[in-house]
Amino acid sequence: MMRIIDSRPLLDAFLGALRPAAGRAAQVTGAPPVLAIVRAAENAGSAAYAARIRATAAQAGITCHEVPLDTRMDGTALCAQVAAVSATPGVNGMIVLLPLPAGTSVPQVMAQMDPDKDVDCQQPLNLGRVMAGTPLYLPCTATAAVMLAQGMLGDLAGVNCAVIGASASVGRPLALQLLDRGATVEIVHIRTRDIADHARRAQVIFAAAGHAGLVDGAWVSPGAVLVDIGINADPTGRPGVVGDINAAAVAQQAAAITAVPDGVGPMTTGILLANTVHAASRQAGVDFTYPDLTTLAAYQALRL
Amino acid sequence: MMRIIDSRPLLDAFLGALRPAAGRAAQVTGAPPVLAIVRAAENAGSAAYAARIRATAAQAGITCHEVPLDTRMDGTALCAQVAAVSATPGVNGMIVLLPLPAGTSVPQVMAQMDPDKDVDCQQPLNLGRVMAGTPLYLPCTATAAVMLAQGMLGDLAGVNCAVIGASASVGRPLALQLLDRGATVEIVHIRTRDIADHARRAQVIFAAAGHAGLVDGAWVSPGAVLVDIGINADPTGRPGVVGDINAAAVAQQAAAITAVPDGVGPMTTGILLANTVHAASRQAGVDFTYPDLTTLAAYQALRL
Repeated sequence: MMRIIDSRPLLDAFLGALRPAAGRAAQVTGAPPVLAIVRAAENAGSAAYAARIRATAAQAGITCHEVPLDTRMDGTALCAQVAAVSATPGVNGMIVLLPLPAGTSVPQVMAQMDPDKDVDCQQPLNLGRVMAGTPLYLPCTATAAVMLAQGMLGDLAGVNCAVIGASASVGRPLALQLLDRGATVEIVHIRTRDIADHARRAQVIFAAAGHAGLVDGAWVSPGAVLVDIGINADPTGRPGVVGDINAAAVAQQAAAITAVPDGVGPMTTGILLANTVHAASRQAGVDFTYPDLTTLAAYQALRL
Repeated sequence: MMRIIDSRPLLDAFLGALRPAAGRAAQVTGAPPVLAIVRAAENAGSAAYAARIRATAAQAGITCHEVPLDTRMDGTALCAQVAAVSATPGVNGMIVLLPLPAGTSVPQVMAQMDPDKDVDCQQPLNLGRVMAGTPLYLPCTATAAVMLAQGMLGDLAGVNCAVIGASASVGRPLALQLLDRGATVEIVHIRTRDIADHARRAQVIFAAAGHAGLVDGAWVSPGAVLVDIGINADPTGRPGVVGDINAAAVAQQAAAITAVPDGVGPMTTGILLANTVHAASRQAGVDFTYPDLTTLAAYQALRL
């Protein structure tokens, strides 16, 4: 029977472990850590993510500043706004939510942030630190996905992992973080020939293609662990979101699958907030270490 | 019959195409582009690489400044020296050769360079630009290896590639550059179970493990293309270097193999020098584009 992994209890425990660190930074600066959220295009997905961040931040003792949505901005105006948010005293970290208005350059907009406030780990300097094995901030989605897999399996050393999707913000940092943990990693994508054959060889499949229900039963070998990173509009037009994995089609083979949207999503927010407390702590000269998951009962409960 | 790929003719043609760009930068600044070479530990491999860079640079119209070897330096003194070289007016690019003296931190030493002069692409900012798919300088060894594979096969889109070795300076940027070209990439390493079984599925094997003769006949499927990135002391004690692939053992199956040291090595130096001309051009405000390999007869001759 395929187990469905909901990470909300883990997020609660993680935020509980993070809150004292947020308090220590606040004691020095006189105010809670501040995360600025920039959202520049109308989009149901980014609106939902912004709402989730706001709700979750309060639980960790973090204040959110949401920058008013102005969808008429062109690229130049948006760059100026992002630079202004980054330069605002008291803002410790920031996230620019995608999508951006059509015709704006994502790398150019991201480049306006002070790397020290780039808690969503989008800038080349912070990506490069991940690549070099010396991350400053943890890439949010990739780290959340690896944490859940590691929670389910205990140790990823020598485990065959397939990463479906090679994006700079998710697939690539995910592959590197898996290598850091000793996993064998295959990265497959839209140009891969016989992608199902590649996926079937994996003990863990990470689906980050952004394609609703892409992974079906023929892609999954018996006992595989599935981490679904996709957040897609439901192609049947129903409200709500669906993942990259067709959960019904894999239920007979897979050992476990992460829920959508309550699997990788909640912990992605948790890592973003932990990075924000890290930023606030560094800026205040206060020591910070990321919460140790292995001590949390909700993490131990993931183990298959 | 396995073809053995010697890239020295390609290097000659590449340097010929690069030389005019070096001349354009020199016309503006009044002096040829300058590459500084820092070598801080006695090592046969780094001595040979420094000698090869010096000899090759002259061919491209580039001046090398070799920083006198002082093996008694501790980490602090070495960091200060690297920072001083980087700050030297007239130095356009620099490379710090490994190994460093025992006990010094490689990332800390590399961090002393101005990223704009880091033509060996070692700094997190420059690695992150590679990861984001917007490289400034090309990672030397990884780019040389990909170029030779692309020369042999024409197009890497959808080709199954195995990268053996997951280092931050070679294996990881190599994997990312292969993804940029549409290849399917599996990264295997010392913790991979049944590594030969993984390697056998690849159409192209890139061996970057730093282990003499690691890849033998059982790792290679018929018609495979082998790119040997290893430069190791000969374990039998004979002078000279050997690669990561046991060339004699794979000769019956493989379609082609790059020579050691004259396969990936020469083009690695070529990329380093092209990055140096790129640095000098940018610093002088002169346009620069990397030479177009596809127009070179020596590149076309690689095609299998």
